[in-house]
Amino acid sequence: MSEVLRLHWLQPYIDSLQVRFLHITRYHISEYYVMTPVRLKHCVMWYLEDSALHVEADGQTYRGQSGDLFVFPAGMTVYNRTITGPNRVISINFDGNVPLFGTGNWLELFGIPVQSRASVEVKEAFGRMLSHREESGISRRITLQGDLLHLLAGLIREGVAERSEQMKDCGDMRVRRAADYIFTRSSRIPEVQELAQIADVSESHLRKLFRQYTGLSPAHYIHYVKIEQAKRELAENDRRISEIAAGLGFAEPNYFARLFKAKTGCTPTEYRRQFRIWGAEG
Amino acid sequence: MSEVLRLHWLQPYIDSLQVRFLHITRYHISEYYVMTPVRLKHCVMWYLEDSALHVEADGQTYRGQSGDLFVFPAGMTVYNRTITGPNRVISINFDGNVPLFGTGNWLELFGIPVQSRASVEVKEAFGRMLSHREESGISRRITLQGDLLHLLAGLIREGVAERSEQMKDCGDMRVRRAADYIFTRSSRIPEVQELAQIADVSESHLRKLFRQYTGLSPAHYIHYVKIEQAKRELAENDRRISEIAAGLGFAEPNYFARLFKAKTGCTPTEYRRQFRIWGAEG
Repeated sequence: MSEVLRLHWLQPYIDSLQVRFLHITRYHISEYYVMTPVRLKHCVMWYLEDSALHVEADGQTYRGQSGDLFVFPAGMTVYNRTITGPNRVISINFDGNVPLFGTGNWLELFGIPVQSRASVEVKEAFGRMLSHREESGISRRITLQGDLLHLLAGLIREGVAERSEQMKDCGDMRVRRAADYIFTRSSRIPEVQELAQIADVSESHLRKLFRQYTGLSPAHYIHYVKIEQAKRELAENDRRISEIAAGLGFAEPNYFARLFKAKTGCTPTEYRRQFRIWGAEG
Repeated sequence: MSEVLRLHWLQPYIDSLQVRFLHITRYHISEYYVMTPVRLKHCVMWYLEDSALHVEADGQTYRGQSGDLFVFPAGMTVYNRTITGPNRVISINFDGNVPLFGTGNWLELFGIPVQSRASVEVKEAFGRMLSHREESGISRRITLQGDLLHLLAGLIREGVAERSEQMKDCGDMRVRRAADYIFTRSSRIPEVQELAQIADVSESHLRKLFRQYTGLSPAHYIHYVKIEQAKRELAENDRRISEIAAGLGFAEPNYFARLFKAKTGCTPTEYRRQFRIWGAEG
């Protein structure tokens, strides 16, 4: 049996992230500066180069120092004033959206806190983006969009790892247990009832928890995982489609094919063909 | 007077490019392999590591050698066979779309040829992407999307430079002359009649040429340029909005404000505020 790739329960959300870079600027802030509270239209990241700032975000208070990273989601009300000055701050504006998660705070979902110490990678990424901004090349925006994705990829990686630690004793551990069960027993399609037992809650409560933490019903979540696993198999090996379907727990290849088509818009064969334009490997 | 940034006439198209990374694989192709012609569903890039391939794309014939880069747009019909083998090829699939340009071949628009010699940067980008693919991290797809954008940014930069060279004697030179006139005389809003004189064609012919080469009417093209120049000014300096409008040739600040709102969805003040959460610089 081929090894089926494991998926983290946050993977669907991360994969559906849409990002649009808007702007990067380095600000010099006088020591007398006091900001009027602003409700952010876009996501904002600040790297504090040389700063002592008092920051308020949705009522929470932070004390920002040189080397700190702030990440604010769109919609947050932010206020700040200089503690001692002058200050230098690099600020990035961007749009971010996780369609699968709706209008919730996706930064929080991915474990990215409002304030943290910037890693060396983050600091370097800000510097690189400032210098790319100075280049007036025609594809400047595309380069900066790529830079921003790399920066976010790092923050998400750290955030999710951190969050998995924290979540060990936390409420949606039940959802995680159920999700882990789906991922690890990839050769079966579990019943919702079975998942409820694993999570030690009633079926209706499990449905509620899944909706709350994943935005999907348990059945749709199972479908998502199965189709993702099937897509990887189709793209990355040459096994027969009926074998792949059986390996993922589908007793009926036709049911698998119908589900695949409904979720992806193309048949398994069509899907594979687009990655297989070389045909069989030599 | 502040220096207004010049824009290349392709800038609107490049800025509207949407890209989605799909897949990267290294293929080993036997020396006996013959491919069935395939109509590509997605854009495909091949880096030929170690190859002698006969390639046909929409009837054109190419002889691919080690170190070559092939870039095929979606919709192209591609066929290839080994000349001498075995071959090693790295293949990337992605979706690309330039909404402003419609369904035309955007790779051609940006001067990216089907076959070229891969630069050191391109070769390194393919290697980096292969190694990022091997990492099973949770944000792998975001990282690869960022890598792809960097790769395309480089190809577009080279392609556009090359294309500008080639276009010196080419038909749409007239559109370019008119566009240059709009960019360089940024403190005025030219009349279409004036542009027709610059391009040395009739007004109706100019309209036709603009539609053909930019997808926009001359008036809409002028609006696009003016609004882009205004956006940069609003984001990057603290001049009064009425001054910026006047500097771009708008006699009526209210007309400027209405146009800006119609094209961007927000007023100049709102637009500036989203980049100005620090208020005035210290």
